[in-house]
Amino acid sequence: MSAPAVAYPDHLRARVDDYLRTLRFPSRAPRTDGLEDAMRYSLLAGGKRIRPVLALATAEAAGVDAPDVLALAASLELIHTYSLIHDDLPAMDDDDLRRGRPTCHVKFGEDVAILAGDALYAEAFQHLLTAQPGEPARLLAAARELAAATGVDGMVGGQFLDVAGVSDTPEDLRRLHALKTGRLIGASVVCVLLLAGVDDEAVVRWRGFAGELGVLFQIVDDILDVTGTDEGLGKPQGSDERHGKRTYVTEYGLQGARSMAAECHRAARDTLSVVAPAGATELEQITDFIFTRTS
Amino acid sequence: MSAPAVAYPDHLRARVDDYLRTLRFPSRAPRTDGLEDAMRYSLLAGGKRIRPVLALATAEAAGVDAPDVLALAASLELIHTYSLIHDDLPAMDDDDLRRGRPTCHVKFGEDVAILAGDALYAEAFQHLLTAQPGEPARLLAAARELAAATGVDGMVGGQFLDVAGVSDTPEDLRRLHALKTGRLIGASVVCVLLLAGVDDEAVVRWRGFAGELGVLFQIVDDILDVTGTDEGLGKPQGSDERHGKRTYVTEYGLQGARSMAAECHRAARDTLSVVAPAGATELEQITDFIFTRTS
Repeated sequence: MSAPAVAYPDHLRARVDDYLRTLRFPSRAPRTDGLEDAMRYSLLAGGKRIRPVLALATAEAAGVDAPDVLALAASLELIHTYSLIHDDLPAMDDDDLRRGRPTCHVKFGEDVAILAGDALYAEAFQHLLTAQPGEPARLLAAARELAAATGVDGMVGGQFLDVAGVSDTPEDLRRLHALKTGRLIGASVVCVLLLAGVDDEAVVRWRGFAGELGVLFQIVDDILDVTGTDEGLGKPQGSDERHGKRTYVTEYGLQGARSMAAECHRAARDTLSVVAPAGATELEQITDFIFTRTS
Repeated sequence: MSAPAVAYPDHLRARVDDYLRTLRFPSRAPRTDGLEDAMRYSLLAGGKRIRPVLALATAEAAGVDAPDVLALAASLELIHTYSLIHDDLPAMDDDDLRRGRPTCHVKFGEDVAILAGDALYAEAFQHLLTAQPGEPARLLAAARELAAATGVDGMVGGQFLDVAGVSDTPEDLRRLHALKTGRLIGASVVCVLLLAGVDDEAVVRWRGFAGELGVLFQIVDDILDVTGTDEGLGKPQGSDERHGKRTYVTEYGLQGARSMAAECHRAARDTLSVVAPAGATELEQITDFIFTRTS
């Protein structure tokens, strides 16, 4: 993790940020702006926008113009934001800080935070289904992927395993993170391919890449929870340990986790060179960034 | 509300119940069954299944075979169940009883209840998008309607207005319920028509019927909170008053609310006779039932 900072496709991130700032969540009732405020407070709190940037980078690698998947990309970030808001709740991880600012429930109250998460998820589908161009059958396939990636066999199932503390073996831990983090990162790649009408076999190979990326992301996350600073993380360092969570570091030690990250990084890059033989600069950058990030 | 009990399309309800019982929510991680248990506990707690029954009855009135919209109907009930679980949470209405049984968070813990709600919503989309037959463009239109009906300009926006207590005028109250309850009841009708490819003008007329039905449902709900028994309601009677909620009864008095219900019922029946001139027995029954129900 002591490697020099690597390039990140900041032009894609800027495009995502610009787009996200334009999003409004109005209703026919004039007084839901308090809900919209909570949604936008968390949505626009910054961050690397890894999922939407990954979607835009995948589009370029697959020969699709990035602007054409901006709506999908935004939906991914809405969903990620919803998951952070719910994960931070007192009944879950009970975190007060996120990206250096009070978490949504600290700022707006627990009831509003629950609803802001619920609403972001609904608006993610709404946005994908109304603003994303694409043939109906392909749009359906992408929406199906997104729903699957965020249900019991996805993000929420993984979060359940996390709060229920039922990961007894390394295999359990791997599965937990494959669901909690891996599925949405995978969907950030796969939904783009489905929209582009890429054939099934190629989708399977790309899933391999996205899967490695998801595991890599989580291992590095666990390492940073131990080695990072509060300031860099934007949340209290050592939070996993205080919650008694099983992590790649508690299971394999810091050195073991670092070796696994390096192995995972190599596997992701190898798979990428197979799925995008002509090269995919931005996806390579994202892969390297996820490996070497310090916050 | 003292009218004799009216017929309810119990054959449709039985069909819905049979179908819901077959639903499973597995994951590739073997230990998410605790999440599935919480989801099914709330989903299979009984109830009149008004939304899915309304969908099946609309299908028959629109000349579509009821079995062909069972997946959509189930999705509606999954979403309704999710909304009940989240509404009951300590940070929201803090209700311990629902349909005579401990609420989801009392039974499974607050963290699991939040996730069970989140998962039911994801699985609702997942089920609609994978199990519901239909042309892609029509299926997309139905999914779009469902997302819109459950976001900021729908169910969650209405619940926000409810917890935020920002309904100062009768007009505010009407809007709150139009979002919180009306939109999903409306979607139960409209999604079926979209799947059936009914033309836009007809959909608008049907929305009128569904809108009246939604308001009627809420007025009667408010009346029952005052006049019902704990046993009949399956939750503590007078719960609205204890929460200091503005209701049709607090705004218009019991007699005023009863007159409004009667007016709304008549308007719903009138609109129904226009949209389904050949008659629609089951929709008439549901309309009468919503008006005269005692729990």
